Amino acid sequence: MDLKQRILALVSDDLDDIEKALTDNLHPNLELVSRVANHILFSGGKRLRPLLMVLSARLCGYNGDYDKTFSVIFEYLHAATLLHDDLVDDASLRRGVPAAHTVFGNETAVLVGDFLLARGLSIAADTSEPRIIKIISEITENMSQGEIHQLDRKGKLDLSESEYMDIIRSKTAVLFQGACRISAILAGASPEKESHLARYGYHLGMAFQMVDDLLDYSFDSIKLGKNVGADLREGKLTLPVINALTKARADDRELMQSIIQNPGFTEKEFAWLTEKIANYGGIRYARETASNHIKNACKALASFPSSPTKDILGDIATYALERKH
Amino acid sequence: MDLKQRILALVSDDLDDIEKALTDNLHPNLELVSRVANHILFSGGKRLRPLLMVLSARLCGYNGDYDKTFSVIFEYLHAATLLHDDLVDDASLRRGVPAAHTVFGNETAVLVGDFLLARGLSIAADTSEPRIIKIISEITENMSQGEIHQLDRKGKLDLSESEYMDIIRSKTAVLFQGACRISAILAGASPEKESHLARYGYHLGMAFQMVDDLLDYSFDSIKLGKNVGADLREGKLTLPVINALTKARADDRELMQSIIQNPGFTEKEFAWLTEKIANYGGIRYARETASNHIKNACKALASFPSSPTKDILGDIATYALERKH
Repeated sequence: MDLKQRILALVSDDLDDIEKALTDNLHPNLELVSRVANHILFSGGKRLRPLLMVLSARLCGYNGDYDKTFSVIFEYLHAATLLHDDLVDDASLRRGVPAAHTVFGNETAVLVGDFLLARGLSIAADTSEPRIIKIISEITENMSQGEIHQLDRKGKLDLSESEYMDIIRSKTAVLFQGACRISAILAGASPEKESHLARYGYHLGMAFQMVDDLLDYSFDSIKLGKNVGADLREGKLTLPVINALTKARADDRELMQSIIQNPGFTEKEFAWLTEKIANYGGIRYARETASNHIKNACKALASFPSSPTKDILGDIATYALERKH
Repeated sequence: MDLKQRILALVSDDLDDIEKALTDNLHPNLELVSRVANHILFSGGKRLRPLLMVLSARLCGYNGDYDKTFSVIFEYLHAATLLHDDLVDDASLRRGVPAAHTVFGNETAVLVGDFLLARGLSIAADTSEPRIIKIISEITENMSQGEIHQLDRKGKLDLSESEYMDIIRSKTAVLFQGACRISAILAGASPEKESHLARYGYHLGMAFQMVDDLLDYSFDSIKLGKNVGADLREGKLTLPVINALTKARADDRELMQSIIQNPGFTEKEFAWLTEKIANYGGIRYARETASNHIKNACKALASFPSSPTKDILGDIATYALERKH
């Protein structure tokens, strides 16, 4: 059994509960809302964010019955950003099925995204816990600003590593961080535990996004022929290319930049570019950076006593680094 | 001095404070966010929603210093929906200036709308008052569902009066209602006062939207040559036409429907249609319905002791009915 299958076997009951909670808490007034929301919510998402919330709460000794309900917030917010991002990027596919805006229209995708955001915040409000509500609304602010930052810097060749880090922190890591941190608050855990879990979530989220970005340059993806170079075609410079550009010889850098600036680059050009990125150590650098984040994520768990739940959180961190898709 | 000028003179200090609060509470991380938000926030909005909040709080004896800060929530939420709606409707102008999505692109308009929603909810969270937060998040849910409902029924000739009422309640009246009701909570007023102000806001909001919809059929607009029939071209059936269609003779109804179903109708066809709507009493019916809502709004204020603030709220209700643009 590989790592992914092992994790899935251990959390299958939790995942079943989360699936149920995702349906039970949607409360759509309209059939159309439910149709569009279901399209994005039930098309093969990993439920990683709600799962992190449920596991973190358990690690803090939570034994109430509100964790599953609460966990859907993180999937609703995630789905809302997917709806809006796919439209922003004009992506045609999401997890192998047509993106919602291509099926239901841009208008509906925008509005159902708004609805999912609002539902997430409503469920947060149901806790009547001001700190939780504040964190959730700040996450939402952060995510939108991260996406805007990314959009604003689209196609800019001078995107720096620190800007890249800032973007992935806002658009991805704060949601992971929030899911882990809030569970500690829900469980009434100590500020120390809350801070450890916040760090775990933050580092996991950073690594998760870096690995996601790396997949765009993996030879497996190239062999699989799937959406190769999609990020670059959308003008998104990610860590491997940012790093390689800083290290490339002037003539190579110029050629690399000219490919990047032409969204119509051929597969052959992209293969050449990927090789250059690898040769200049951009892939290795991004992988090492992600790996360091995973190490920090695991370190953040160190002070929790051994438990099956702690092991699963560690396994998830390892898997986040190893995953191939 | 006409009614509008009189109201403006009485609330000019409040409006100045609200303008300042709109800037002070935006907290954008990025210049682009501030540019787009300012485009929609500072292009001639009436600030009616924040003003209603501030005046309602004063009516309840509120004398803290948080009302102006809090009032911006209602303008941020309103601006967020305008950004998304203009995109949904592909409107080219908003208050006489190019709509944000035509200036900054659909992507940016979507994301800055998300940011404004999130900011509104963050400010609500700052109150640490669960009931307030819950109401704000429910308003947001309601508004998105109202817009989706409207979109879903676009161009449908069988839109009923009750469906129309449901749509304008969700997309407009709940925000007015929330602004007035929440101020009572902020002021620590009695549940009775809260419920009176909620009713005032609800009826005012319903009338406000009906009058807005009526302007599309007013002969003044036709003479002014401005965006005549824009609602119908977007497939939005509103009360005057819904009502007239139920009363029209079969042959007239058929002709009216054929014009409505063709978004490329000529000005002449629209003028004919407007006359039919007027002749069948659709305009009068919509105006009377709006007028009844205004009467109910004023009735809801009856139990408050006389005060300049109460008078202004009454004047605003009267103006909402009389306004010509």
